[in-house]
Amino acid sequence: MRIVAVESSDIRFPTSRELDGSDAMNPDPDYSAAYVVLHAEDGTEGHGFTFTIGRGNEVCRAALDALAPLVIGKSVADLGEFGRRLTHDSQFRWLGPEKGVMHLAAAAIVNAAWDLHATTRGVPVWELLASLSPGEIVDLVDWRYLTDALTPAEAVELLTAVAPGRAARIEHLRESGYPAYTTSPGWLGYPDEKVERLCREAVADGFRMIKLKVGADRADDVRRFALARQTVGPDIRIAVDANQRWDVPDAIDWMTHLAPFDPWWIEEPTSPDDVLGHGAIRQALSSAAPGGRAIRVATGEHVANRVVFKQLLQAGAVDVVQLDACRVAGVNENVAILLLAAKFGVPVCPHAGGVGLCELVQHLSFFDYIAVSGSLEDRTIEYVDHLHDHFTDPAVVTNGAYRLPTAPGFSARMLPESRSHYAFPHGAAWRT
Amino acid sequence: MRIVAVESSDIRFPTSRELDGSDAMNPDPDYSAAYVVLHAEDGTEGHGFTFTIGRGNEVCRAALDALAPLVIGKSVADLGEFGRRLTHDSQFRWLGPEKGVMHLAAAAIVNAAWDLHATTRGVPVWELLASLSPGEIVDLVDWRYLTDALTPAEAVELLTAVAPGRAARIEHLRESGYPAYTTSPGWLGYPDEKVERLCREAVADGFRMIKLKVGADRADDVRRFALARQTVGPDIRIAVDANQRWDVPDAIDWMTHLAPFDPWWIEEPTSPDDVLGHGAIRQALSSAAPGGRAIRVATGEHVANRVVFKQLLQAGAVDVVQLDACRVAGVNENVAILLLAAKFGVPVCPHAGGVGLCELVQHLSFFDYIAVSGSLEDRTIEYVDHLHDHFTDPAVVTNGAYRLPTAPGFSARMLPESRSHYAFPHGAAWRT
Repeated sequence: MRIVAVESSDIRFPTSRELDGSDAMNPDPDYSAAYVVLHAEDGTEGHGFTFTIGRGNEVCRAALDALAPLVIGKSVADLGEFGRRLTHDSQFRWLGPEKGVMHLAAAAIVNAAWDLHATTRGVPVWELLASLSPGEIVDLVDWRYLTDALTPAEAVELLTAVAPGRAARIEHLRESGYPAYTTSPGWLGYPDEKVERLCREAVADGFRMIKLKVGADRADDVRRFALARQTVGPDIRIAVDANQRWDVPDAIDWMTHLAPFDPWWIEEPTSPDDVLGHGAIRQALSSAAPGGRAIRVATGEHVANRVVFKQLLQAGAVDVVQLDACRVAGVNENVAILLLAAKFGVPVCPHAGGVGLCELVQHLSFFDYIAVSGSLEDRTIEYVDHLHDHFTDPAVVTNGAYRLPTAPGFSARMLPESRSHYAFPHGAAWRT
Repeated sequence: MRIVAVESSDIRFPTSRELDGSDAMNPDPDYSAAYVVLHAEDGTEGHGFTFTIGRGNEVCRAALDALAPLVIGKSVADLGEFGRRLTHDSQFRWLGPEKGVMHLAAAAIVNAAWDLHATTRGVPVWELLASLSPGEIVDLVDWRYLTDALTPAEAVELLTAVAPGRAARIEHLRESGYPAYTTSPGWLGYPDEKVERLCREAVADGFRMIKLKVGADRADDVRRFALARQTVGPDIRIAVDANQRWDVPDAIDWMTHLAPFDPWWIEEPTSPDDVLGHGAIRQALSSAAPGGRAIRVATGEHVANRVVFKQLLQAGAVDVVQLDACRVAGVNENVAILLLAAKFGVPVCPHAGGVGLCELVQHLSFFDYIAVSGSLEDRTIEYVDHLHDHFTDPAVVTNGAYRLPTAPGFSARMLPESRSHYAFPHGAAWRT
């Protein structure tokens, strides 16, 4: 079954009209999707998108249109080959390689191909992935630039060792779900009363971890963190997220001031490109929390590709790998990142939120638990209660846990009426 | 004087019809420019472009159009502020940050602003830069993410120490030019007879260094390198360039086989994102050349931004910094890279070739010698004898050296008839 047409669109939600999603670097995001539909010859569709925060979504759409000729006429039977074809075109490669706009667009198309493949097979993507043999999983990966840290043979070995427990772990997920944490109380624009109320609600809803945005104003951060800690008590984990606001010395200094409130991790303390900088921050904070415990270092939502993740792990620069469904080239490259994290024994806690990211990444974390890491220890998926009602198969989080989806595909099909209402710039939502 | 309009175009030269420019990763480049003209209110123009190798040039053009609203109505009087405004827009930043298509487009616009500013002042860009005080130079830089390696105060100190010799060094450049090396003999597609002839011609033309492309076929590389060494003798430096073809272990192995022919440097042995990988390769090759000398490690044409260059220097991973005029955000970010290289004592040997890159980077190297590093030791600018006749003020290389341009601006204005003939896809060159 071949792809006969590729349809792109620019969809934007005017979220900047509220302060939802505001942080130290992104004061006014309009959550957006450069959306793509792959049409197969039998009429089946595969849906995918890349997430952006507004301006420039049209550039991602132009990148989707540029990549379309590479997939028209192609089948999705061999998704490893499909992914490598998209990221190895010699002329497009100049524009990265494997980063920025072209890579965001590749993510959308690769994810759409997985949606198409899983839809055709009548299973959710997590289940399709979990049904693959170790060799088939390894064949999905583009191994270029990875073999100094992990070889395909080592990966097969690692997957084979974990394989026996797959069925029991699926059963566990069906019963208990996968732990989630919530960022909803933590946006910078919220007044204290709202922070306190949302913290209380998060605990009541079963979340065992929340996240606060920091980095704009230190005194404000101290006040909000103290309030949140007082509200949730000592047993709920509180992570903080600086969204790349600091230089390395500033990160160490600022976090030393927040340390008394027992931060679980500091997320994106500095540039996502700065492997050595994350290493220096991690080292400096290795006994900064109460009781001489470490403040963990987390990053990933802006980490450009598997080569940078490889180095973050090789350098011992991170405690938490926060892969993103649409930043790297889709499912395939995220499988590489899951394998690298498993090799180095570092937990993966995906970035989500935005629009549709919760829907996508849950499949990757389910697969990680079932077939790659085999562990839930210190694993948790971000959850933000935004914009889920625009999808046909929205993520379901109850009692602080993501529930296994059963619908075929990747849970990432936006409702036709939402795509039309929020089309930019001519949809009804943008005409007012 | 304010910018009142931004005009973009997609210009491509069908260079893939010959084998000029073919290497191990780029078998069929069509040298291209996403071209931008800034129109000032008094009718003055500033020209700039980003270089690509064909497909995707239209995506860079879309990025130029997306960035245009950020500069319309703005003045180029404060170019530091101008550059930071372009790369810090909170919504566009999501698409990088500071990498890939959006950064290539920012390069074009920043460089065009320098062309506009220098044209207005009636001086070449190198001379405008060399006339700035240490404080003014430091103000051009976006210091975010650099201060763990270099602070503005240190940079002022470094520039102040070098300032006294500026006039004498300008005089030296006027008389002797700036050393160039040539890649013209080294493309992979050429038959042996052509390689040998071009090597002989390079030496006769006064070049003291040539570069060969490697990485596609080892036996072929050994044969061509032996031929080149035999042709030019032991005193001409021969660098080799793998264009990111290898994983780390492959790079070390392959270069061990080429070592007997005394390579001056190995360029782009692996992924440009792999700081630690370059460090491992450099370490492994530190005594691999004849006489126990090091094979130097060089990279830069695909290094995404100043943060990655910072780490390459901090980690001792490179011997040669190969900045590119259009990969990072133009003159301003390249000033940051020159300052970092000077701090770490590593020579800058810019990437050039393509279309228009020789024209642009010469200004940066002249400025480096005059005001930043103050040295020509082991410095050389790449030269490729391609497509210069399409510019109004083409780079002049005689007796193996770049000559100081005297025309106002950045030497990067493409002739109107070339822009029209090679316009993609409707120019005459593409209609055949």
